[in-house]
Amino acid sequence: MIIDCHGHYTTAPKGLQDFRDAQIAGVNDPSQRPTGDPKVSDDEIRQSIEGAQMKLQRERGLDLTIFSPRASAMAHHIGDEAISRQWTRVCNDMIARVVALYPDNFIGVCQLPQSPGAPPANSVAELERCVTELGFVGCNLNPDPSGGHWDSPPLTDRAWYPIYEKMVELDVPAMVHVSSSCNPNFHATGAHYINADTTAFMQFITSDLFKDFPTLRMIIPHGGGAVPYHWGRYRGLAQDMKRPPLSELVMENVFFDTCVYHQAGIDLLLKVIPNKNILFGSEMVGAVRGVDPESGFNYDDTKRYIEAANITPAERKAIYEGNALTVFPRLKTRLQARGLLG
Amino acid sequence: MIIDCHGHYTTAPKGLQDFRDAQIAGVNDPSQRPTGDPKVSDDEIRQSIEGAQMKLQRERGLDLTIFSPRASAMAHHIGDEAISRQWTRVCNDMIARVVALYPDNFIGVCQLPQSPGAPPANSVAELERCVTELGFVGCNLNPDPSGGHWDSPPLTDRAWYPIYEKMVELDVPAMVHVSSSCNPNFHATGAHYINADTTAFMQFITSDLFKDFPTLRMIIPHGGGAVPYHWGRYRGLAQDMKRPPLSELVMENVFFDTCVYHQAGIDLLLKVIPNKNILFGSEMVGAVRGVDPESGFNYDDTKRYIEAANITPAERKAIYEGNALTVFPRLKTRLQARGLLG
Repeated sequence: MIIDCHGHYTTAPKGLQDFRDAQIAGVNDPSQRPTGDPKVSDDEIRQSIEGAQMKLQRERGLDLTIFSPRASAMAHHIGDEAISRQWTRVCNDMIARVVALYPDNFIGVCQLPQSPGAPPANSVAELERCVTELGFVGCNLNPDPSGGHWDSPPLTDRAWYPIYEKMVELDVPAMVHVSSSCNPNFHATGAHYINADTTAFMQFITSDLFKDFPTLRMIIPHGGGAVPYHWGRYRGLAQDMKRPPLSELVMENVFFDTCVYHQAGIDLLLKVIPNKNILFGSEMVGAVRGVDPESGFNYDDTKRYIEAANITPAERKAIYEGNALTVFPRLKTRLQARGLLG
Repeated sequence: MIIDCHGHYTTAPKGLQDFRDAQIAGVNDPSQRPTGDPKVSDDEIRQSIEGAQMKLQRERGLDLTIFSPRASAMAHHIGDEAISRQWTRVCNDMIARVVALYPDNFIGVCQLPQSPGAPPANSVAELERCVTELGFVGCNLNPDPSGGHWDSPPLTDRAWYPIYEKMVELDVPAMVHVSSSCNPNFHATGAHYINADTTAFMQFITSDLFKDFPTLRMIIPHGGGAVPYHWGRYRGLAQDMKRPPLSELVMENVFFDTCVYHQAGIDLLLKVIPNKNILFGSEMVGAVRGVDPESGFNYDDTKRYIEAANITPAERKAIYEGNALTVFPRLKTRLQARGLLG
């Protein structure tokens, strides 16, 4: 079974964006604020999915996508906490509808109602709702709800602990994932995303977060940002700081996906990062949509790179399936209940 | 000849730090502000260099280091522009003294008197002084003088153009290099440095900077941040944005150093980035000072990785010497005048 741990609903029907547009207009003009649910029919959802994510799953031979709202649209920095909460609920409900329509192809992961300056504790209720009521198996956690100003405390600050306590209680992981950037210095998918990945890893190295939460699991997407490429730097920095080796310090808790869009990058990832810490992901339909003229295939068709990599069949299976089931135990339970695991 | 394009004076004598401490105390208490020059003797400089950078040059078989003030100590965010200007002048003069004492081993690169909110144009005079009076061959350009708040315009904004005009006129390159971070989210050498590298590259991709300045040359240190590891992403993003191929768009103007502290990272760099765009660098004595237990050698002994890499002797020579001479033409002229080039 091939599980893609990193897919966003980037193709959602227009009704969702209409809702968001009204919300944004309502930031300054409360009379425009939308109420109720976005006007999106099941047929529109089917259409938005079947021509995109489902088609690509079929073409590429993927079985299941761990699916969350469009990351760049979370935009926690727009409006206040009430607006973020309403938008988050609407987006998560939309994911639940996709999963209800295609339970064999998708499983849900939620965004959180974060907002600049709002205590992370205020996101706990939505996390609980998504997991216990909607059947989601994880969450996306934004380390910078400001959208590129980085004025929240680091992920290792105790302000975040209420979320971690709930994650541990529910046994769900988080993918550390920023949203769009409103800082002109940072291109979203080309800089802000990758920087956030690198930043989070370094925060983990300098803290005792995983001593406090030994079973907490964090996925750092986009192949771990710059981390595998600079693996020697991170090993060396930890050593200079008299921290334990990375294997002990963070690698029981931190996982990288395979959203790296060329063979040489994937080869490096598979070479330096322990096999147990790598989860298959493609981020499709996502950041890069074109066809690589050097290969003739889509940049984000990451399965091709894993297939071509010099690893054993057992290692490949762990990346495709086993590691995701370990990191997302609620997914494992679900698949077992449906008789979909061997 | 082996030229290390990335060395900082991280071992400067105590007198320099005393001067800085007085400056910092003087931010709030003008009576404490230092005047004149730091109290540092030539003997102290000799001692600080001979036991560190010179020793390592000798041990590792390096010939010449392109040498600049300690990057993390630039701290453009401390105090106002006048403080930055005084500190910058003092630090650059200290580099000039090192070069005067060891003209065969070091050549100078300056920091600039940047300050949050100050126009980049105000740095032009110091750049000119360092090149024309002190004989320096390049500068370090901080894309985020705020120290981790990223509230300046991107490097591609016209506000920066006066610096680029002077760089072109003087025919000197810049290394894009941030300083320390006063944002608790960003560890300096583990996150802020690498993020800045990645950020700058993406800024270049989205702009026409190198159309406006076809001969401008920028070195992105630390192996280009996350860029080579995500080379497919950057090629794909440029393509999605209907920009020219990276080779045309940026790779006549952008260069990466080899400050990547493990073999697999260097191998990736050499594989995906054109040979002409890679300059040998080690950042010693710098970010990571320990010995890698996996190799038995210092993490930052990057020459070992280049030696072990699967490249031709001509490619190796270009990385060690030829590319640096192209990027730093004033260095080439200097070495030729001294009869040090073949």
